Amino acid sequence: MNKPRILILGAGYGGMMTTTQLVKRLHPNDAEIILVNKNNYHYQSTWLHEPAAGTLPPERTRMLIEDVINTNRVQFIQDSVTLIKKDEKKVVLESYGEIDYDYLVIGLGFESETFGIPGLREHASTIEDVNTVREIKERIEYQFACYLNNPERKAADLTIVVGGGGFTGVEFLGELSHRIPELCRDYDIDPSQVKLINVEGSKRILPGFDEELAQYAINRLQKRGVEFIFNTHIVECQPGRVFIQEKGSDLRREIEAGIVIWTGGIRGNSVVEKSGFDVQRGRLKVDQDLRAPGYDTIFVIGDCALFYGEGEERPYPPTAQIAIQQSFNIATNIKHLLNGEPTKPFVYKSKGTVASLGHGDAIGVVFDGTKLKGTSASAMKKIIDDRYLFLLGGVGLVLKKGKLNLFK
Amino acid sequence: MNKPRILILGAGYGGMMTTTQLVKRLHPNDAEIILVNKNNYHYQSTWLHEPAAGTLPPERTRMLIEDVINTNRVQFIQDSVTLIKKDEKKVVLESYGEIDYDYLVIGLGFESETFGIPGLREHASTIEDVNTVREIKERIEYQFACYLNNPERKAADLTIVVGGGGFTGVEFLGELSHRIPELCRDYDIDPSQVKLINVEGSKRILPGFDEELAQYAINRLQKRGVEFIFNTHIVECQPGRVFIQEKGSDLRREIEAGIVIWTGGIRGNSVVEKSGFDVQRGRLKVDQDLRAPGYDTIFVIGDCALFYGEGEERPYPPTAQIAIQQSFNIATNIKHLLNGEPTKPFVYKSKGTVASLGHGDAIGVVFDGTKLKGTSASAMKKIIDDRYLFLLGGVGLVLKKGKLNLFK
Repeated sequence: MNKPRILILGAGYGGMMTTTQLVKRLHPNDAEIILVNKNNYHYQSTWLHEPAAGTLPPERTRMLIEDVINTNRVQFIQDSVTLIKKDEKKVVLESYGEIDYDYLVIGLGFESETFGIPGLREHASTIEDVNTVREIKERIEYQFACYLNNPERKAADLTIVVGGGGFTGVEFLGELSHRIPELCRDYDIDPSQVKLINVEGSKRILPGFDEELAQYAINRLQKRGVEFIFNTHIVECQPGRVFIQEKGSDLRREIEAGIVIWTGGIRGNSVVEKSGFDVQRGRLKVDQDLRAPGYDTIFVIGDCALFYGEGEERPYPPTAQIAIQQSFNIATNIKHLLNGEPTKPFVYKSKGTVASLGHGDAIGVVFDGTKLKGTSASAMKKIIDDRYLFLLGGVGLVLKKGKLNLFK
Repeated sequence: MNKPRILILGAGYGGMMTTTQLVKRLHPNDAEIILVNKNNYHYQSTWLHEPAAGTLPPERTRMLIEDVINTNRVQFIQDSVTLIKKDEKKVVLESYGEIDYDYLVIGLGFESETFGIPGLREHASTIEDVNTVREIKERIEYQFACYLNNPERKAADLTIVVGGGGFTGVEFLGELSHRIPELCRDYDIDPSQVKLINVEGSKRILPGFDEELAQYAINRLQKRGVEFIFNTHIVECQPGRVFIQEKGSDLRREIEAGIVIWTGGIRGNSVVEKSGFDVQRGRLKVDQDLRAPGYDTIFVIGDCALFYGEGEERPYPPTAQIAIQQSFNIATNIKHLLNGEPTKPFVYKSKGTVASLGHGDAIGVVFDGTKLKGTSASAMKKIIDDRYLFLLGGVGLVLKKGKLNLFK
């Protein structure tokens, strides 16, 4: 029983799918598979804007890991990774201690990046995981519930500033702009008191989409009351306010805001950097076969991996779709290595991208370049979500956790 | 068209029932009826412990006033009362200005009484109205949602201290002790971290009930994890802690607690005192016919009225049941006065009292002295609640807002 041990760190999209793919591709005698994750559940990080806004119960975004993986084939350890001793082929876990590996898959996900902007880490909330989005939802509801009881209330208490106009920021605003009228009804607040403001450093939102689709999203969100401030950075956050500054200007402007949500940047898990790997914003630049340079048995996946396609100048963005495709490649490559065969390079095939604007509205681009807007894009978003669940846990998981009501 | 004007201040149990009783007893030509209330809704103040604990949607406790009163007969003014000019027969409203009356019914309800205990008003929450209970519910949920995200968390963040073991405190603990396991599931918190502590100045809870029933309530709540500290006063409240002191002791003890709810005292609406009436804890001692001494056309009802039964040494407690019975007496007396007939003294007939312990459990005493415990008491509580709705708005209101599922 001296099987090689495959250790997978993190049960996000990449780690979970690598695990299930390995179970499918390997024979039980080929290798021992161990999955480590700090929570006993996996969650859909691309759905988190919904529970954050309060439009989806947090429970819908998560599932117990042991309900999804084959526990006869995979050992699950609930623990936090504190260090990777890459030259000793060991990983240090907070409670368990050290654990050896023959093959390692690093899928530890992202952390928020606040770029050292003063006060942002202390006074802004971030959409990171189930815990932080539950806090955001309750923070907003508590703020609204307190409003009428505060004799010194001012409308700015009901101003919500969202920093960053990327995927997460825009999808969150899409949900939140639908949730606000409901909150106003629940707490007897005049909707005209509430402000949603998006502050974005570049000249428009959603850099991954073309002008036309981004403009569609802007128009739809503006109609629901979202105010956009472009070309402008948040330069400081204090309790009850943010300071912003237009690019090229010396003028700091203050926005009073009861709540600030920061979606303006992510970085790879800091454990990777702490473990002595060479990183850029926490992401490890991997070889074409997704291995860490110089480490033949270490693979990196998802938000911790920085991957440049052959001859390309910009790295791939950290998306769920890419992480999922990488898992197929890594599972194949580990099998090849176990068989003494050469690895294969990772080739990304975009199946399209969709950004939700909430309530059956979305924008998207299909793999052939076709643009989608409105309900068709929204339906495609739900198909993508359900397809992932299908790949992960079959029809049963789609029925349990999926978004079946496609045209809602 | 020079009809006498009856002005009713406050749409609580007393004001609402007086209004509907006057509509029933008077002919449209007899008098003009005006009801003033700061909100456009009436709510069941005896139910507030439920939305405060999060076990009943706040909406279930309230109803639009104009959905209940006969708007052909009653003019409703949504406004806050700032002063009663009793010698000029005028009332000053915040927006409307001055309004004359011929007959006045003061039903302005209660306020929390903190007895000058330092920090209580600032750092403790009180169960007063729809606004404050929504805040309490959200405060608790927010506290639980933040817990896992706080690297400096301590179990005391999840300690909830309830000051006062009267009706409201005990009924709130009854609901909350059922809600805690649910909150723990929702926020991945180990229930053993959570503490519910009741601090009561006298030697036991629920002074309105006998020892046996009070002990039953204590046992049931203790089983659900509530800790009781008797003979002890809260002497100061600071953010994150209360200080308590046993009667007769000089020792201050500190309890770290993330949340403090004060249910230890109420007083009559401060407008009564401000208007120059002679009050005790904001309550105006009324004559046997519920009139303010020296003011033949001013009636006081509910929490603002201090009523001593003929020859009795203790005043009646401020309960909904008494307010409702007073409304019948006041409507009769106003009719008598309009007809030039003498008024009748108020005679209270207790129909029994029930205190809920949550989830189908309760204690109660029926009018003939029979004691009830458990489901029978709980069913009686719901019958009382539904009976009030029936008196106020008929079967329709019971169907819409009642607690029909009697044996749940």
